[in-house]
Amino acid sequence: MAGTNRRRLRIAEGPAVILVEPQLGENIGTAARAMLNCGLGELRLVKPRDGWPNDKAITSASGADIVVNGATLFPSIEDAMADLRHVYAATARNRHMVKRILTPDVAAREIRGYMSAGESCGILFGPERTGLTSDQTSLAETVITVPLNPAFSSLNLAQAVLLLGYEWFRIADATPAEALHVGHSRPATQAEFERFFDHLEEELILNGFLRDREKRPSMVRNLRSLFLRAQCTEQELRTLHGVVTAFAGPRRRVEKKKPGR
Amino acid sequence: MAGTNRRRLRIAEGPAVILVEPQLGENIGTAARAMLNCGLGELRLVKPRDGWPNDKAITSASGADIVVNGATLFPSIEDAMADLRHVYAATARNRHMVKRILTPDVAAREIRGYMSAGESCGILFGPERTGLTSDQTSLAETVITVPLNPAFSSLNLAQAVLLLGYEWFRIADATPAEALHVGHSRPATQAEFERFFDHLEEELILNGFLRDREKRPSMVRNLRSLFLRAQCTEQELRTLHGVVTAFAGPRRRVEKKKPGR
Repeated sequence: MAGTNRRRLRIAEGPAVILVEPQLGENIGTAARAMLNCGLGELRLVKPRDGWPNDKAITSASGADIVVNGATLFPSIEDAMADLRHVYAATARNRHMVKRILTPDVAAREIRGYMSAGESCGILFGPERTGLTSDQTSLAETVITVPLNPAFSSLNLAQAVLLLGYEWFRIADATPAEALHVGHSRPATQAEFERFFDHLEEELILNGFLRDREKRPSMVRNLRSLFLRAQCTEQELRTLHGVVTAFAGPRRRVEKKKPGR
Repeated sequence: MAGTNRRRLRIAEGPAVILVEPQLGENIGTAARAMLNCGLGELRLVKPRDGWPNDKAITSASGADIVVNGATLFPSIEDAMADLRHVYAATARNRHMVKRILTPDVAAREIRGYMSAGESCGILFGPERTGLTSDQTSLAETVITVPLNPAFSSLNLAQAVLLLGYEWFRIADATPAEALHVGHSRPATQAEFERFFDHLEEELILNGFLRDREKRPSMVRNLRSLFLRAQCTEQELRTLHGVVTAFAGPRRRVEKKKPGR
């Protein structure tokens, strides 16, 4: 799925993503892509195993070069955290430490709150194979754990970055929960709908489908209900007018000009 | 991060994940891993480019073999959908089609509802490079679009599967939004806290820190507030008792036995 670079890049002021000793360049790239998907731009790397810069990171970022190229390198986790006010550790492990553990959505909300009060935040992610050590986790104020299948909760590094980024993004996102995409058209007005339905009903009387006068009202109600449920656009109603006319055929079209019922 | 296979695998009755013409085995494997992370087990593959079975899919599933090995192969998207009652298309593209578009959380809620009423559901995901075509999308009842950075909304295949699976999982998940992990200990009682605080205050009087009788009440209040805020466990209070005793030194320990104040 190609990125839509025509629209302006929108990188909001978000938490720093701190990858601690990441092993594979591919994962750094995929994490960077996930960050940009969610409008996050600040990537910090602590001792990436295969050095930096890393070609594989660029390739797998699939266009999120702005994040990869802007990444900052740090010699230690403490250095990477030094200027931050609130640091979170993303880890699924229960350790013998007394720490607040938040779900991603609650953590994201807290981070939004801190950052809008001018307090910088960052999230630590451990190496692919082992995750954060207990010592590394202990440096963070709070733990974030993604609730997942307890029998299989080990998340890929980029997947973990994505889920936290996604929760962060969606808080400020105003996409309606449900929308009807109407393409180039617009939803039909009630008058347009009635005009179509009159047309349909007229033809169904002419072709004999509604000949049973007793059953007619309920059949009409059912048909009306079906077409209303479809929430047609103005364009679709025009198509439906055409369909009805086509079914009616040339003979009907002539008859239609006479008084119908 | 190693999986915890000790706990029983928990695969709930969830929607089928239908990968349409997936290109890379790696992505099929990573998608399978994401599915199992979210308790989804039913993977359907429509004409995977590199054939099936695929070794790379197994490797990158990182243990989610149960999903990869259980995948069903279909010759066409229509075959893969045939037995399902509600089919959703995961796509970010706005097409000239009149379709309901849901956010992942609302779609997940709808799918839960349908499935608990016994109506089977599936979600279509297109090939990595192009996503679903218009014709493929038109086969689905409803579109699911993940709200993301409009300037960079192209999601990796496995990331798309993860986000939808995550929304599906979390609806039935009862993880508290915030928890305090207390390890092997338990939160201290108020009485235990007061015993510690008495000990601390006593020593601070003995060592002269609280010698200023006028300032003492506010200093004590501030200290009390700080330690209360930390919400100590019973084990931590015992550690703090030890810390205070160690600071007091042997001389103090003797003095303590005399009436303190």
